[in-house]
Amino acid sequence: MTYPNWLSQRSYLSGDRMALSFEERQWTFSEINDLALVYAGKLSALGVKADSRVAILAKSNPDFVFVMYGCLHLGCEMVMLNERLAKAELAYQIEDAQVNYVLVVDVLKEKIDAANVILFSQLDETEPAAFEPQKQWQQDRTISIMYTSGTTGNPKGVRQTAENHFSSAVSSALNIGIAPEDVWLCSVPLFHISGFSILMRSLIYGMGVRLYEKFDAQRSAEEICNGTVTYMSMVGVMLERILANVEEAAMPASPRFKAILAGGGPIPVAYINRAEKCGIPVLQTYGMTETSSQTTTLQSADAEQKIGSSGKPLFLYQVKIDGTEEPGEKGEILIHGPQVTPGYIGKFAERKVQEDGWLHTGDIGYLDNEGFLFVVDRRSDLIVSGGENVYPAEIEKVLLAHPAVREAGVCGGPSDKWGEVPVAFVVLNKEATADELLVYCREQIASYKVPKQLLFVEELPRNASNKLLRRELRTWL
Amino acid sequence: MTYPNWLSQRSYLSGDRMALSFEERQWTFSEINDLALVYAGKLSALGVKADSRVAILAKSNPDFVFVMYGCLHLGCEMVMLNERLAKAELAYQIEDAQVNYVLVVDVLKEKIDAANVILFSQLDETEPAAFEPQKQWQQDRTISIMYTSGTTGNPKGVRQTAENHFSSAVSSALNIGIAPEDVWLCSVPLFHISGFSILMRSLIYGMGVRLYEKFDAQRSAEEICNGTVTYMSMVGVMLERILANVEEAAMPASPRFKAILAGGGPIPVAYINRAEKCGIPVLQTYGMTETSSQTTTLQSADAEQKIGSSGKPLFLYQVKIDGTEEPGEKGEILIHGPQVTPGYIGKFAERKVQEDGWLHTGDIGYLDNEGFLFVVDRRSDLIVSGGENVYPAEIEKVLLAHPAVREAGVCGGPSDKWGEVPVAFVVLNKEATADELLVYCREQIASYKVPKQLLFVEELPRNASNKLLRRELRTWL
Repeated sequence: MTYPNWLSQRSYLSGDRMALSFEERQWTFSEINDLALVYAGKLSALGVKADSRVAILAKSNPDFVFVMYGCLHLGCEMVMLNERLAKAELAYQIEDAQVNYVLVVDVLKEKIDAANVILFSQLDETEPAAFEPQKQWQQDRTISIMYTSGTTGNPKGVRQTAENHFSSAVSSALNIGIAPEDVWLCSVPLFHISGFSILMRSLIYGMGVRLYEKFDAQRSAEEICNGTVTYMSMVGVMLERILANVEEAAMPASPRFKAILAGGGPIPVAYINRAEKCGIPVLQTYGMTETSSQTTTLQSADAEQKIGSSGKPLFLYQVKIDGTEEPGEKGEILIHGPQVTPGYIGKFAERKVQEDGWLHTGDIGYLDNEGFLFVVDRRSDLIVSGGENVYPAEIEKVLLAHPAVREAGVCGGPSDKWGEVPVAFVVLNKEATADELLVYCREQIASYKVPKQLLFVEELPRNASNKLLRRELRTWL
Repeated sequence: MTYPNWLSQRSYLSGDRMALSFEERQWTFSEINDLALVYAGKLSALGVKADSRVAILAKSNPDFVFVMYGCLHLGCEMVMLNERLAKAELAYQIEDAQVNYVLVVDVLKEKIDAANVILFSQLDETEPAAFEPQKQWQQDRTISIMYTSGTTGNPKGVRQTAENHFSSAVSSALNIGIAPEDVWLCSVPLFHISGFSILMRSLIYGMGVRLYEKFDAQRSAEEICNGTVTYMSMVGVMLERILANVEEAAMPASPRFKAILAGGGPIPVAYINRAEKCGIPVLQTYGMTETSSQTTTLQSADAEQKIGSSGKPLFLYQVKIDGTEEPGEKGEILIHGPQVTPGYIGKFAERKVQEDGWLHTGDIGYLDNEGFLFVVDRRSDLIVSGGENVYPAEIEKVLLAHPAVREAGVCGGPSDKWGEVPVAFVVLNKEATADELLVYCREQIASYKVPKQLLFVEELPRNASNKLLRRELRTWL
């Protein structure tokens, strides 16, 4: 099964419709398609081909979008780099993915040490070469690759195919509806599935995207109230700041505004109630990079009755709890559906991501008697900090590489601003200060992963087989 | 790739939503799912199994829907019988499809001479047996089989898979949008793809269906004006009658009413303009049984500028004109997409329906310079009469079997009421009256196929290779 090229098809079918707006500028689908063709020609002139794998590091602005759409026309695979990562982390992903090229916006060029770098300024100066855009896209074509960590602390590159993105977009539409006048406010990162999936929906639905380079609670609140946008994706911590702004303006959300989709863990019911007073439905979602965005969604109307639930699966998806028979029994959450990645690349290429068609999430949860999902224990003690996934094992690995550290354990601590922040517990080998260790971390990992607190202890909580008990660490805070 | 069972999934996800309404009664998705399970149990008790092929002959009412949904739960293939066909035509389809059972509503039982008939009254009296509904549906599972004729005059059974129906529903949604409050008025036959596809959309979208047993222009107009429905499918001839009623009521369509989808050939622009004055957008569509409903759609806004066009393909579909390079060049219309049938059953099972992934429609058309499709010459000189496809070859075959007929040619003549009606030209062998021949036809084919006019001529227009020129016949009228 193939798809028509989404960019050409969208331009053909609704070329005059607004596709993208950024600050005061906006582009129709026909215009972005033309720009994407130009960028594809430029990339082609510089050697990028249909079977190339390219990494991209850029800021969330229209140039980033056009370069990505150029890559889509060419047919190459895009490794989405997180601009907040440290140099060593980026180097790991570029190496693991064995990319042919790294496309880098000039302001971020210091972050990349790699051969085959193409700067955005070089693209600007390059004359487009003639090339043939791919008319048909194979369903199993890899569109994007995103790195996510896990129990081992080694990030794994997750493949997201055209079918993954398409079925995710369609499933969301079957859940919340679509209308030609929809505009999705995107201030979540484009290199994460949360932002990238908004671009995919835009092409598939013919829907406008209002793009922000950075989250801006006040402007977001204004757009929600004046109805220039109809949907917005965010993580829990952003919600409170938007609500505060809407409440301060003492003006309800526009009736044109339809809903906020909120990921990254349960939202306090108090927020849902405040949002309701502002006329803003909030849909809580559960998903991951391996499921190309949300898998389950909790409707606003169910939020009060099902506190802490992640809702029900979207139409094409199925969720079950491994090894359980009865509602309420806890076990590993398994997911089935066309949104599930076919697998990893690089050194984890051989790792099976599905068993009998079911993704083993590593998260623990249960389904209640009405089939609502509750996630009770997240995979690898995942910390969600300001929308970024932080894996304790990754930070522990860095700390353990320091000569003064004998043992290290990381868990999430509460934060009003970020929801959670990483906190480290360290058993020393020899004398060292917390500052010394934190400076050491800062050189090697993104600043959002650097522990916000570092405590020295005599020993770490471990079970009989000497496994670190991170949950126990939390109780120490 | 598999789907979750659409009925169970819909009941699980939006069980409380209205699924079906008929006269004064209505059912939620949870209720229709329960009823479908009961019917599946009854069918199971009578021997129907997952791999059974069953023909169904019934009136467009809830019982028909519940029986079909019971078959969906069981996993069997449904051959949709047209209640307007003559006994011999139905017998041909039942024989060709080699069905295991024929499910027949009691009022139509005289139409069927077959072994293994199960009457609806028998179903009512049967205690449901225990059975296991299919949890997963294979994408290539055959859901429905519909017979359609062609150049040879022999009806062919077209397979429509779960993927065909799913991609058709999704493509329509991506074109016109979907909202949880949508209700589709269905007064087109459920045994045709026009009506059946509304049921599939209902399950996939979680959308309500307002079902009529028969088309009723006045009631339809009322519902359009008071907003109890949001969409309606119809053929051109129904549109004028609805408009007349809306105009008479001197009340515009409700703002909740979104659009009429009109198939079966171009709609006069005068109608489109009248509809616009009533506040009713009309979307003209082009599709066929082999494409599981519409493939292209002309938006209301383009109707005046693109008179006679069938619009542009839906998002997942592609249309091209065989052997042409330039806009405006005419040729056979080819269609590509996941809505295209994988093939026929019965005696045409070996006939290839696609070449290199493209369906050869037999229709002649062109794409203009903006990519709008114009159908200029329909396959097999197809006559569309009141929404039913009538194939001249099929009627000619019947006439030629009469001892007095040497040659016969059939074409479409204009009709205010039906759009077109079949007209026959006959060269006699020996003396016979028109009435005699028409009585003969009436015994063998559905009354809508019986020529409304029968003219005796000396010879028929033929080309050098003796092929009948049906187009030429039209000029004789």
